[in-house]
Amino acid sequence: MLRVPFTDLYATLERAMLHLGLEPQAAQLSARLFAETTRDGVYTHGLNRFPRFEAMVRNGSINVHAKPSRTAAFGSMERWNGNRGVGNVNAYLAMQRTIELARANGIGAVALANSNHWMRGGAFGWQAADQGMFAMCWSNTLANLPTWGSAAPTVGNNPLVLAVPRENGEHVVLDMAMSQFSYGALSSYAKRGKPLPVPGGFDSTGHLTQDAAAIEASQRALPIGYWKGSSLSLVLDMIATMLSGGLATHQLPLEPTLEAGQSQMFLAIDPANLSAAGELNHIADGILEHLHQAPPLDPADPIRYPGEQTLRIREENLSLGVPVDPEIWQHLQSLGDPIFR
Amino acid sequence: MLRVPFTDLYATLERAMLHLGLEPQAAQLSARLFAETTRDGVYTHGLNRFPRFEAMVRNGSINVHAKPSRTAAFGSMERWNGNRGVGNVNAYLAMQRTIELARANGIGAVALANSNHWMRGGAFGWQAADQGMFAMCWSNTLANLPTWGSAAPTVGNNPLVLAVPRENGEHVVLDMAMSQFSYGALSSYAKRGKPLPVPGGFDSTGHLTQDAAAIEASQRALPIGYWKGSSLSLVLDMIATMLSGGLATHQLPLEPTLEAGQSQMFLAIDPANLSAAGELNHIADGILEHLHQAPPLDPADPIRYPGEQTLRIREENLSLGVPVDPEIWQHLQSLGDPIFR
Repeated sequence: MLRVPFTDLYATLERAMLHLGLEPQAAQLSARLFAETTRDGVYTHGLNRFPRFEAMVRNGSINVHAKPSRTAAFGSMERWNGNRGVGNVNAYLAMQRTIELARANGIGAVALANSNHWMRGGAFGWQAADQGMFAMCWSNTLANLPTWGSAAPTVGNNPLVLAVPRENGEHVVLDMAMSQFSYGALSSYAKRGKPLPVPGGFDSTGHLTQDAAAIEASQRALPIGYWKGSSLSLVLDMIATMLSGGLATHQLPLEPTLEAGQSQMFLAIDPANLSAAGELNHIADGILEHLHQAPPLDPADPIRYPGEQTLRIREENLSLGVPVDPEIWQHLQSLGDPIFR
Repeated sequence: MLRVPFTDLYATLERAMLHLGLEPQAAQLSARLFAETTRDGVYTHGLNRFPRFEAMVRNGSINVHAKPSRTAAFGSMERWNGNRGVGNVNAYLAMQRTIELARANGIGAVALANSNHWMRGGAFGWQAADQGMFAMCWSNTLANLPTWGSAAPTVGNNPLVLAVPRENGEHVVLDMAMSQFSYGALSSYAKRGKPLPVPGGFDSTGHLTQDAAAIEASQRALPIGYWKGSSLSLVLDMIATMLSGGLATHQLPLEPTLEAGQSQMFLAIDPANLSAAGELNHIADGILEHLHQAPPLDPADPIRYPGEQTLRIREENLSLGVPVDPEIWQHLQSLGDPIFR
């Protein structure tokens, strides 16, 4: 494994973004979000996603010149059009606008139509929590998950993010898709020939299975909680699509490098004017202490809250260098070379 | 099975509520919510819950004279204290206030501390959707679910409600707890000696099982999506408790008839000023048509959206009479009798 300094990763991504035609501010922001995602250990959605991102810029699915525009506003709720721009930039700007609305009014929301894959959803939870906000956001996706009672992919795995701010920066950030396992995770288990830790889908004969390869073959991955996750996915799609006026899961292209136009929803709540100083922190500490006191089934595996590992991994990657895929890294560096501009 | 006219059920519940000391307006509202819950087919949380409700009034867990009071407000976000009043009345009033905030400002939220069991959470989703609102609400509960990685009950099954309004009144309302099966459902399967349709927990040796009795014995019910539902439950508890300043799951009494003081969260979004007439309905119809087109695995079991059966069951129960448990019904009637006042 190759490790590179975070600043090198960031700078090289920024040059690559400029190479792909992003304007300077957008290039910097998008590069930072990609680099931070890898820095924080979410390897699937950082640098490793860059090749697909690049392909989508080159095939026209992502318009590097587009900027989001507001299409409707009433009070603390706004509707924006992402104009098929860069997904992580659009989502960051949408969350930032949501935070402004919440700062002015206690709570705010932005529904964003016509955007693109936001990469790591959790980034926007951290963004809000770092500014003292509670936040919630989600995106629809192409139809990649059978709805409960059918074998046909009908709903998206629609990632949902919830963020709880803490004064010490050790925020609680949940970033979860509606599928029990991503297809990336299934593929990784299948390659290693390892059984999934819990059933992750149905095999071709309709039986629940822990065999990842069988689920890849049947394409019948499980929604979390069976009928519950399937319903939750549907409702998240409806809310984001109706409020943004954008495309629903069933309207998104099924080919991943053409999957453009996602509908996304952002909410933030500012607790600053509601509570006495320290009250919220005290409550959060009490809840997390209680959680940590739960006796683990495996003493080597203590109970953790979502996001608890993030800061430790971040520190480690900042100090040792950020792990990168050598091939993608080499390609990224070649893109930054002015010869190719 | 005994069926009684809805108006009789409602009137008898209202007399019983007056008997228990509720003031006239609260008695009427609470009775209506109990009666409508049974009318809509959510039998576990309507009349069948009345005996526990009565016990909690009698043991002082529910203060029938309390009214909710606002403790903080900023813009479109408010904090209320339920003052240990009647749970479904408090929740209804909180959602109604949330709707007012959303009407004025596009989006609104109320965090409610120190309330009581809200009975059927879906009622407040229907309440909002009937007024043209998107809504989301949840409640924490006592610790009745092992957190992922532990066998000790640590998190609540915290019901979460999401509502999507449709102009024809056929709203999409999801009302789901964080446990795969309620203890009520486990008990019903165990009594009938029937296996659960999917694994619902661990047996005492730590293996996933469809044997409901084994899960009742181990008390190791499954959160939906394993680690995902466990995390979601934690985060919902944190948000509701921190924003309301109330009690967290770990602070709620473990004895069900003493479980008072829940923290709850209500959000509503008014789409009226954001979109052209008919646009939202058109989007919703498109999504639901696509869902209904998914080929069912069992042709006798077509794909349905959450809440799809509600209006049909409601019509049936209004026309044939609402099914009631004869014993509870008899007791309810005796309570209404002035002799006992």
